Amino acid sequence: MVEQHGQGADGPITPRATAYAQWYQDIVAAAELLDQAPVRGCWIFRPNGYLIWEIFQRELDARFKRRGVQNVYFPLLIPQSYIAREAEHVEGFSPELAVVTHGGGEELEEPLVVRPTSETVIWATLRRWIRSHRDLPMLLNQWANVVRWEKRPRAFLRTTEFLWQEGHTAHATAQEARDFALTMLGVYEEFLQTVVGMAPIVGEKPAHERFPGAVATFTLEPMMQDGRALQAGTSHDLGANFAKAFDVTYQGEDGEAHPAYATSWGMTTRVIGGMLMVHGDDRGAIFPPAVAPVQVAIVPVSGRDAGATQAVDEAAATARRDLTAAGYRVALDDRPGLRPGAKFFHWERRGAPLRLEIGPRDLAAGQATAVTRHDGEKRPIPLSGLTGAVQALLAGLQADLAARARTIQESRTQTVDDRAALELAVAQGYALARWCEQYDCATAIQEATRATIRCFPLQDHDGSYHPAPTDPGPCAWCGAPAQRRAIVARAY
Amino acid sequence: MVEQHGQGADGPITPRATAYAQWYQDIVAAAELLDQAPVRGCWIFRPNGYLIWEIFQRELDARFKRRGVQNVYFPLLIPQSYIAREAEHVEGFSPELAVVTHGGGEELEEPLVVRPTSETVIWATLRRWIRSHRDLPMLLNQWANVVRWEKRPRAFLRTTEFLWQEGHTAHATAQEARDFALTMLGVYEEFLQTVVGMAPIVGEKPAHERFPGAVATFTLEPMMQDGRALQAGTSHDLGANFAKAFDVTYQGEDGEAHPAYATSWGMTTRVIGGMLMVHGDDRGAIFPPAVAPVQVAIVPVSGRDAGATQAVDEAAATARRDLTAAGYRVALDDRPGLRPGAKFFHWERRGAPLRLEIGPRDLAAGQATAVTRHDGEKRPIPLSGLTGAVQALLAGLQADLAARARTIQESRTQTVDDRAALELAVAQGYALARWCEQYDCATAIQEATRATIRCFPLQDHDGSYHPAPTDPGPCAWCGAPAQRRAIVARAY
Repeated sequence: MVEQHGQGADGPITPRATAYAQWYQDIVAAAELLDQAPVRGCWIFRPNGYLIWEIFQRELDARFKRRGVQNVYFPLLIPQSYIAREAEHVEGFSPELAVVTHGGGEELEEPLVVRPTSETVIWATLRRWIRSHRDLPMLLNQWANVVRWEKRPRAFLRTTEFLWQEGHTAHATAQEARDFALTMLGVYEEFLQTVVGMAPIVGEKPAHERFPGAVATFTLEPMMQDGRALQAGTSHDLGANFAKAFDVTYQGEDGEAHPAYATSWGMTTRVIGGMLMVHGDDRGAIFPPAVAPVQVAIVPVSGRDAGATQAVDEAAATARRDLTAAGYRVALDDRPGLRPGAKFFHWERRGAPLRLEIGPRDLAAGQATAVTRHDGEKRPIPLSGLTGAVQALLAGLQADLAARARTIQESRTQTVDDRAALELAVAQGYALARWCEQYDCATAIQEATRATIRCFPLQDHDGSYHPAPTDPGPCAWCGAPAQRRAIVARAY
Repeated sequence: MVEQHGQGADGPITPRATAYAQWYQDIVAAAELLDQAPVRGCWIFRPNGYLIWEIFQRELDARFKRRGVQNVYFPLLIPQSYIAREAEHVEGFSPELAVVTHGGGEELEEPLVVRPTSETVIWATLRRWIRSHRDLPMLLNQWANVVRWEKRPRAFLRTTEFLWQEGHTAHATAQEARDFALTMLGVYEEFLQTVVGMAPIVGEKPAHERFPGAVATFTLEPMMQDGRALQAGTSHDLGANFAKAFDVTYQGEDGEAHPAYATSWGMTTRVIGGMLMVHGDDRGAIFPPAVAPVQVAIVPVSGRDAGATQAVDEAAATARRDLTAAGYRVALDDRPGLRPGAKFFHWERRGAPLRLEIGPRDLAAGQATAVTRHDGEKRPIPLSGLTGAVQALLAGLQADLAARARTIQESRTQTVDDRAALELAVAQGYALARWCEQYDCATAIQEATRATIRCFPLQDHDGSYHPAPTDPGPCAWCGAPAQRRAIVARAY
């Protein structure tokens, strides 16, 4: 039942304190999520890696559909001229494009780009789909692969091809578009918190970090264990920019033509990398139960007595059967010729959140020994009420991981007011600092500290997001007048 | 609740007898499944079209997983040199490739092809994943988009980009690979029969129609209403060809190195086009209930009396709520200002298999009028037991459509023994004819009749496929000795 494909899965794991970047690479290998592809910047999703993405898809897709979003699929290949229709958009994406110049054995009249994102082809199509106010809102999403040439690739985090969903909506008014962009931001936050166990800062990007063509970009920025930020998802208010570029108007109830207002929002496979960096430890990956490819690893611990061994094997098989029937993802590690310790090591590296050991003594006491991966704690649980006990343990574990992520993030976020404090804060986590909103100042901060302006935090009141209250004062970096505080941090 | 996007959905439908090809285009538009893309040969999947693909995915994926298949994802971009590693493979696919020559603003050292299929990159990887007999069988699948340049594109049926699943497996012996290829053929047949309502002929392709690199290609060939065949899925026994090309061996229990044996099998979005062609009629699409984007269309038929109208609207809303809660895909057509007849027309074109009309007289009798799309029959069903009645009607309808497809196929399949009879048979359907298995003879048949050798039929005994008994005699076309009969037909 236990499959072990590929090489390197059992190699040493560099401690986080020694070299965090190398530790990350090591646990990606240890968890058997990816393998190298022949094209630089691309990776192969192995069964465990793709299973996590399937779980993400299922969870997100259900949330989208509950909000009335319909799935569609737009083509991979886009005429190069389309990308140029929205001025900021072409400037933003041109350096990252993969270009198809030959098809069917001939040179193409017009080169085609492999989609880096689909706003252009979608808005060229919405011109036909949107005629009247009765067609709005139009709420679309697609699950797709995209290609953005990556000069410094990292597994999951920066890849030339990645998998994602891209939502695209059209609305009658600017306010409705803004509201919907924030609604989807809330969907992402709730997903990251409850499924992935992250505690993202939610905020608005500064102008120079907006999506090319957006009037506002909202972002989710969970902290990794080394104190750096990872942009885990974005939701864009695109205003009427794409409607104007592609001439999309609708006839309002007033009989007049109005531009349609747009949003787009995306989440990608990079979140899997962020999840590893938030929860893993020096022994390997740790997956939140909601996402773990294997939630429960059962390891029979045989005695020397053949009769006792058979009873243990039977109890382990029963436990597997019952837990599988209850809907859990279970592995029974019955590989012959391997000592229990080697099996414990195997499942620790692969991040199974719960291990059940069953030995002759456990069996005599009518119990299994449950070991929670994230804290190594052992406790007996009764074999008679196994499913209920496992359910409770996994629910607690899911909450523990999320709480631990929140604690790390809060303990490493410092409100700072001057340059020295900002430099100290970003060396180990997030700085919450007044910033003057000048691009040159952001550049100066980045050159001096490698930190960037991540976002202006939003606050959640009564189920909707609002800007944090203004807090006027001098910019922590340059001293110029500033109106509000931003999260400043190094980032992946 | 009723959305109507895009143009052309309410245009005239050409009768099948007038021009079958135009009828097909018209019902694709009428059912609002696709829209034109800017790149020739590519289409946009609208919400209804993509929903059908999601249902196909869910149904097939569950069947794969029950057989132990794990999902993976291999990259879109493949080095051009990989395609050349298997000699027949490169010859087969080279004319269809889309080639990326530039990435990230620079010309690439080696051009990359957009995957036309993934055998090469997968087998280059399996070299690392397969070491021992304990690694086998390895059962993998991916859901992906592929690009094969199409010179004569047709919606769903022949498209430059299409969506599909591609299964890839590795086995210890040639026999195991052959058996697994046939197992997946059986999965496809059962899916086409029970979900899509098709009655495919299942058989083996002649040598000249094999997948490039295969030792045997198995196929499913349902008949369309015009008597033509559509290849709806294939399963390939690849022997050790890819293992040899990519040097994949495993250590057997005997300690020796052995080549791994391969299968691959795929089903694509073209099946959606086949489903339309099998079931549709001159009034529009007809979807089998298992797949229909809208299974039940509820149309309130108001009277002149405001009180009666309100009661009708309430009954319709209740019916929608109850059927939705029971898991059905339901539309309540409460668009104001449209006559019931226009609504009936709307849902007939869009293929909803069941329509429920509720008017004041129905209500007084405690019933709704159920109209089955495929035969236009009306019958009263009690509002008190609505869900059960709908369930029974839809189950019967699903069976009716499959039976009708089988009847058409059987009535248009003729066993023939000479050239004249073969010509007559392929003009209206399938010929079951002795064929000499010479490529030149197949070419001569095609030149004279436009028909091709579709397959040598297999028979299903005791849950596994076997070749039909030999039936020696003269080739129906050229008179040379022949051992068995093949299905000969024109095809899409």
